[in-house]
Amino acid sequence: MSEKITPREENFSQWYIDIVLNAQLADYAPVKGCMVIRPRGYALWEAVQTELNRMFKETGHSNAYFPMLIPDSFLRKEAEHVEGFSPELAVVTHAGGEELEEPYVLRPTSETIIWSTYKKWIQSYRDLPLLINQWANVIRWEKRTRLFLRTTEFLWQEGHTAHETEAEAVEETLKMLNVYKTFVEDYLAIPLLTGPKSQSEKFAGAIDTYSIEALLQDKKALQAGTSHFLGQNFAKAFDVKYQTREKTLDYVWATSWGVSTRLIGALIMTHSDDKGLIVPPKVAPQEVVLIPIFKSSNKEAVLDYCADLEKELRGAFRVAVDADDKQSPGWRFAEWEMRGVPVRVEVGPRDMENKKAVLVRRDNGEKKVVDRNAIVSEIKELLDDIQKALFDRALKFREDNTTSVSSYDEFLPLFEGEKAPGFVEAMWCGDPECEAEIKADTKATIRCLPFDRQNRVAGTCFHCGREAGHVAVFAKSY
Amino acid sequence: MSEKITPREENFSQWYIDIVLNAQLADYAPVKGCMVIRPRGYALWEAVQTELNRMFKETGHSNAYFPMLIPDSFLRKEAEHVEGFSPELAVVTHAGGEELEEPYVLRPTSETIIWSTYKKWIQSYRDLPLLINQWANVIRWEKRTRLFLRTTEFLWQEGHTAHETEAEAVEETLKMLNVYKTFVEDYLAIPLLTGPKSQSEKFAGAIDTYSIEALLQDKKALQAGTSHFLGQNFAKAFDVKYQTREKTLDYVWATSWGVSTRLIGALIMTHSDDKGLIVPPKVAPQEVVLIPIFKSSNKEAVLDYCADLEKELRGAFRVAVDADDKQSPGWRFAEWEMRGVPVRVEVGPRDMENKKAVLVRRDNGEKKVVDRNAIVSEIKELLDDIQKALFDRALKFREDNTTSVSSYDEFLPLFEGEKAPGFVEAMWCGDPECEAEIKADTKATIRCLPFDRQNRVAGTCFHCGREAGHVAVFAKSY
Repeated sequence: MSEKITPREENFSQWYIDIVLNAQLADYAPVKGCMVIRPRGYALWEAVQTELNRMFKETGHSNAYFPMLIPDSFLRKEAEHVEGFSPELAVVTHAGGEELEEPYVLRPTSETIIWSTYKKWIQSYRDLPLLINQWANVIRWEKRTRLFLRTTEFLWQEGHTAHETEAEAVEETLKMLNVYKTFVEDYLAIPLLTGPKSQSEKFAGAIDTYSIEALLQDKKALQAGTSHFLGQNFAKAFDVKYQTREKTLDYVWATSWGVSTRLIGALIMTHSDDKGLIVPPKVAPQEVVLIPIFKSSNKEAVLDYCADLEKELRGAFRVAVDADDKQSPGWRFAEWEMRGVPVRVEVGPRDMENKKAVLVRRDNGEKKVVDRNAIVSEIKELLDDIQKALFDRALKFREDNTTSVSSYDEFLPLFEGEKAPGFVEAMWCGDPECEAEIKADTKATIRCLPFDRQNRVAGTCFHCGREAGHVAVFAKSY
Repeated sequence: MSEKITPREENFSQWYIDIVLNAQLADYAPVKGCMVIRPRGYALWEAVQTELNRMFKETGHSNAYFPMLIPDSFLRKEAEHVEGFSPELAVVTHAGGEELEEPYVLRPTSETIIWSTYKKWIQSYRDLPLLINQWANVIRWEKRTRLFLRTTEFLWQEGHTAHETEAEAVEETLKMLNVYKTFVEDYLAIPLLTGPKSQSEKFAGAIDTYSIEALLQDKKALQAGTSHFLGQNFAKAFDVKYQTREKTLDYVWATSWGVSTRLIGALIMTHSDDKGLIVPPKVAPQEVVLIPIFKSSNKEAVLDYCADLEKELRGAFRVAVDADDKQSPGWRFAEWEMRGVPVRVEVGPRDMENKKAVLVRRDNGEKKVVDRNAIVSEIKELLDDIQKALFDRALKFREDNTTSVSSYDEFLPLFEGEKAPGFVEAMWCGDPECEAEIKADTKATIRCLPFDRQNRVAGTCFHCGREAGHVAVFAKSY
């Protein structure tokens, strides 16, 4: 415990790994590219699940579960889909001691198995909309992996909905994008850009993909979730028609949308510092850690005093207590800072005498001496402050690291060298070839065409000089 | 909807399938032996998860997640384990477009991947006990499958704990068995026998396996969950030693325990009737369905009256409302009976005039006219009654179908023919060969040696006549 964390300035990648391992969020697995999610990391995922489940149910969705094995032939039914996912598939060829007649792939995503099933469930407009989500593991064979951000197996949720009309499906796509934005900004305190991806960056099989994009502390972008308008592509691939209100037959309109354990990586990389993890209060498995400070002479008195306090705190917050007398207070402070608990409550003999307690904020280290009797309301206020401060700090970081350019000459130097420049905004023509040239030159990709940056007047493409109707945001990305 | 359900007397297997499909709990998947768990079935699993998670956390366990891919070589490290699971393994041989150097198996259970990881996490007695649970999908290639009861892929939780001493591990094994018993009896209203399995029926790799055993309406037994004392078998296979309090090195002691979506099958087969599903109130996704009864002339008045009622009901219960005027009241009654909602509230024009409502119990069809103003307390009482009545009815069924025998001559006719005889108790010698002979003759297996039936004086084995120290319970089983 309390092992040294490499400073961000020295080596950002190592800093991230040090936090994940030392805060015991995850561990490398003895399986290539996979990880073990340890209880402290899984508790963060459970917080994500709890809130998203609530939001999904409030928007009318139900959970279900579909098989993880998909017949190889299903993937091939949607041409773009199979092309996009083929390189990443893991294949079961043998089972029960025999070679299988048709191999199964492990789901990289579940559109095909789900739409093959929806064909049985959807006959009429009365069966629509069908609003289903599943929490599941998926497998994508990745060459370069990184704990939480990109692993061969990961946990996610995938929503798959079916609708009568194109308009309704588009509305659903944007509604769920907005659910993600609300959750990630309000709970994970990560500011997001949202908007459509360029056509070359969209999901294999979608008409349009929309994403939520975060900027991490190393100024690289992270696609933190996606919502896809699938048009009638999968309905056509699996022949899912319904009887319309006008008694005609039509293909069903579809969406799918997902976020994954990658969000935990985004959370770590957005907020944490060189002392360790920082977790926003709303999703912190423990909001408060109570640390009694004592010598052997006054141990009993301090612990007595803390017993009542602990009870009161537990009535109001998720609480940890660390009264380990084998460790110094300083060691214990550092340990709980590393674990990211938002508020530390210190109580020593003098605090006891004065009926006080010391509150220390994890996000900025500020100390405050408060009346013992006012402690619950003081902590409540502090937790709200921290939640807001984390978002504001991340937003300021993003704003400080967003550059607007109008020419390729301004653009190119930003992407030179190993360092990432943050978000770079520019008017762009929309042509995939233009986008490909930029990527080949600089490794910069278009993160999205942010909804809230489209208020500029039309201009010319910063790269090719042709007419440009969109503001695109470029970045180096994970 | 409201399709015909085959009566139990006519064909019990078909009755079960009819309920699963018509109540939309699950559907056959286009993958051999797999199923799709539909929202109404998944809601039952979510109720199981919610309560068990609470009980696991109250007993000190944390959730985590381990990879579903296991290197083939890991399975081979524990000789009995690999022998037991080999026939059921599914194997990934290709991934990322290439043949793998070492194939991965899809977890049939996670002892091996978890103990290979525990080796990294456990050095000292200070790291113990390690109390971890995971919710996951597992794959066992089954030849004969049945929705919920036995599917190639199923969902489950698996606890894996590590302890300093044998006594502590045995205590944990029995504690978790008791958690299962408490949950299944109190929430699912299924009475259980609990006790050790015979050595030939234990988990591959365990020292002792304990199980919870239910008796279903076709008088077949179902193993509904197991808790294993693993001794030091997996610690030795994966070389997991710890420094003891005496500064010596010793292998760690282990347990594992699991229940699965099979519990949903047990619930259906224990309580349901020829009208459809019956769900115990405590785990019912909807406790109450409100059905307004009206003609076009009084529709508005009745619906107005019901709006307030609905609001009040929603404040106290999980509520569905069915005011579909395209369907007759009778059709709607039948539909919600099929779905298993415990209490139906009928409100028609006369009820409205008299400030009354009609409550109908799903379990026995009893009707009660109650005052509109007393409805919440009346329903609360009814739900408690139903929860208890379901358990009592199932317990009586089990008692009526438990036979005690003292000779093989009494035993043999019970197991003749296709029908199952329920539970059959007998004094048994404990010899696996004796057990195997009985099984070969009759297909009867020992379900467990129930804790609460061991108060008989020692006697002689009903089959081989040798000294017998145990009461064993035999049955035909799923």
